Amino acid sequence: MNHIAEIISVGTELLLGNTTNTDARDISIMLSELGINVYYHTVVGDNPARLKAAVEIAKSRADIIITTGGLGPTCDDLTKQTLAEAFGVKLIFSEEEAEIIRSYFKNRLHYDTMPENNLQQAYLPENCTVFHNDWGTAPGCAFEAGCVTVMMLPGPPRECISMFKKCAVPYLRAMSDYVIRSHNIHIFGMGESAVEDKLRPMMLAMENPTLAPYAKNGEVMLRVTAKTKSDEEADKLMEPAIEQVKSILGDKIYGIDTESLEKTVLDLLIEKDMTIAIAESCTGGMLSKRLTDISGASNAFLGGGVTYSNHAKFELAGVDPEFLAENGPYNEETAKMMAEGIKKRLDADFGIGITGLAGPDPDENGLEPGTVFVAMAAPNGTYCRKLHLGQGRERIRVLASNHALDMVRRYLTGLKI
Amino acid sequence: MNHIAEIISVGTELLLGNTTNTDARDISIMLSELGINVYYHTVVGDNPARLKAAVEIAKSRADIIITTGGLGPTCDDLTKQTLAEAFGVKLIFSEEEAEIIRSYFKNRLHYDTMPENNLQQAYLPENCTVFHNDWGTAPGCAFEAGCVTVMMLPGPPRECISMFKKCAVPYLRAMSDYVIRSHNIHIFGMGESAVEDKLRPMMLAMENPTLAPYAKNGEVMLRVTAKTKSDEEADKLMEPAIEQVKSILGDKIYGIDTESLEKTVLDLLIEKDMTIAIAESCTGGMLSKRLTDISGASNAFLGGGVTYSNHAKFELAGVDPEFLAENGPYNEETAKMMAEGIKKRLDADFGIGITGLAGPDPDENGLEPGTVFVAMAAPNGTYCRKLHLGQGRERIRVLASNHALDMVRRYLTGLKI
Repeated sequence: MNHIAEIISVGTELLLGNTTNTDARDISIMLSELGINVYYHTVVGDNPARLKAAVEIAKSRADIIITTGGLGPTCDDLTKQTLAEAFGVKLIFSEEEAEIIRSYFKNRLHYDTMPENNLQQAYLPENCTVFHNDWGTAPGCAFEAGCVTVMMLPGPPRECISMFKKCAVPYLRAMSDYVIRSHNIHIFGMGESAVEDKLRPMMLAMENPTLAPYAKNGEVMLRVTAKTKSDEEADKLMEPAIEQVKSILGDKIYGIDTESLEKTVLDLLIEKDMTIAIAESCTGGMLSKRLTDISGASNAFLGGGVTYSNHAKFELAGVDPEFLAENGPYNEETAKMMAEGIKKRLDADFGIGITGLAGPDPDENGLEPGTVFVAMAAPNGTYCRKLHLGQGRERIRVLASNHALDMVRRYLTGLKI
Repeated sequence: MNHIAEIISVGTELLLGNTTNTDARDISIMLSELGINVYYHTVVGDNPARLKAAVEIAKSRADIIITTGGLGPTCDDLTKQTLAEAFGVKLIFSEEEAEIIRSYFKNRLHYDTMPENNLQQAYLPENCTVFHNDWGTAPGCAFEAGCVTVMMLPGPPRECISMFKKCAVPYLRAMSDYVIRSHNIHIFGMGESAVEDKLRPMMLAMENPTLAPYAKNGEVMLRVTAKTKSDEEADKLMEPAIEQVKSILGDKIYGIDTESLEKTVLDLLIEKDMTIAIAESCTGGMLSKRLTDISGASNAFLGGGVTYSNHAKFELAGVDPEFLAENGPYNEETAKMMAEGIKKRLDADFGIGITGLAGPDPDENGLEPGTVFVAMAAPNGTYCRKLHLGQGRERIRVLASNHALDMVRRYLTGLKI
């Protein structure tokens, strides 16, 4: 009973390139975690004839069809009508959904301003399972038509993905007599091919659970996936594999099922009631931005300096201007002075200093772009890494911030830095 | 002669959700600028049979088929073989391309480490137009098969998009006996629906050129597009429309065909030989990051403070701690003190201060998330905007940075702030 799903994303804005199809990506990740194969994504505009043609093709090659978009109140929104027609089901007005839509407007606007066409969203396929929309107005739904399961989800990513998690995932799991469960092992400090090299014999020998690596943003993630009768059984099956990965990769693993490296470090700092301050030069605010992307960052992140010019390195982080005049800003000493300076200035437990060349051009002394110094002033002393991060301004900046986070993580968990 | 294109993106990583299909999005934008319709995007894995099936479908509904991905050296990379088969053309070894691939490795690694399978990339369809890859190893190509134009491009976004711009766009333009030319008008300070309201009569009356609005990152962009016999004629046709838009939207327009608001401001500063320093609280480094995303930012951006805690507001930007203790950090005075403090500290021509609540939670005094104060200390005095930016942590932060940039832009171009 291996299911094959196809995702059909509906919206002319996708074909014009005005929107990125993150819905198909995010649904695919979750389908893969459920063990459901995806063979095709299709994107089609707000055009009923072309959507119908796409549905006919999908019917011939998938047994789960998931649409995103085209459920809204405007005349462009034709997904429900088109799919109902394609599968020969009737649309029925749901008084319950109409009431939910009315109260959505009551809570947000003056009720009398609700355009009447919003009630179009309350028409749903007969006998479908309704997916209530707790994040917007258009409800989604699922129904069975012959051997095909059809799901329709709204297009806005927040509504689509929240609804998929809350409503579609349980629906899909209930269709199956087994469960698919995954754990993600997060790794920093090794490339994807190095991880693969170390784990290849293990990966090849595994059937259930399976193990697969993914690379992103200068990190590697390993996904362990088991297919069994229950979540408990799946976890039991995965435990020895996870232990084996741990024994092979050791402290390069920074977390299991964690959100991000910055969240891991922020949680560690908050847990230990410690604080951090950051002086960044070539990363230009990126590390601070990444930490403050997280709501609640202020519990550990005090602030920092974006010390782009030499003068700013002195004024904000207290770096010795004579040293800078003599040696320039790209060296270990400057990184350390920045880390120590900002730590002292903001009275933090940790200070970070990042200085280097993001490129694309070399500096006047011929220093190669990608040469970056990352220093951490910790309670017991100051550490520094000299890095050669290759090419690509964005990539260099992401990797340099990752290294700073890695140093704090290793310090706080008692590892060698 | 209205062309219809279909983009087929090849790669199992897309179906697993490990990669976002930005290639299809970015190519779509450029196709739309060329006046070429796109009716479908298809994503298919590294599977020759399924790719062939997708190509057969595309043949029946498009006359331009563009593939991305699957041109590399590994055994997964089957796009060329599959399309050659589907269109009945032969693959021929190109000694010229082989030499380019060899020299790529010579310049980057020890030559003897080049895996022999890299030469697979030198096989190309007979009589095709070769698209040289100046950004990687796999060349792309275009060929004509009956009434269909086929283009194959590499998958990595930098290679794909650079090659599309440099090679595919001229190829597609040459296919046509008319040219499609666009200009983008960039607007800040009005929502998409407000822009549409003001321009609706004009937009409805227009046929050639056309005018269409797009919203992104808290900004609106208007695209004017003309279809004529030559670039010069197109520009002549668009000029009155652009002038009319200018007279309607006035100084809400910050640029025509510019890259971004931050680039516009940076260029203005550099042109006037002036400098800027930034103290950001709720934006947490985002504005500094956006400016330093641009290579050459150091010519005008001196640095700044990420003054997340009250102590950091005092230490880095000199905000009066007694005032903060009494009034808290979310008010006009704090924003102004931050702007003035960082300007003085770094001896800059402009100082920016941003303080407010990005949320999602209100503060202890019940201040609504989305309330943000953006101040600019300019050579002739200090200005402040009190903003209500609604919901969404990321959105609030982007909009607050946009407002800061807008204030500097308006000051430097002599407009009311």
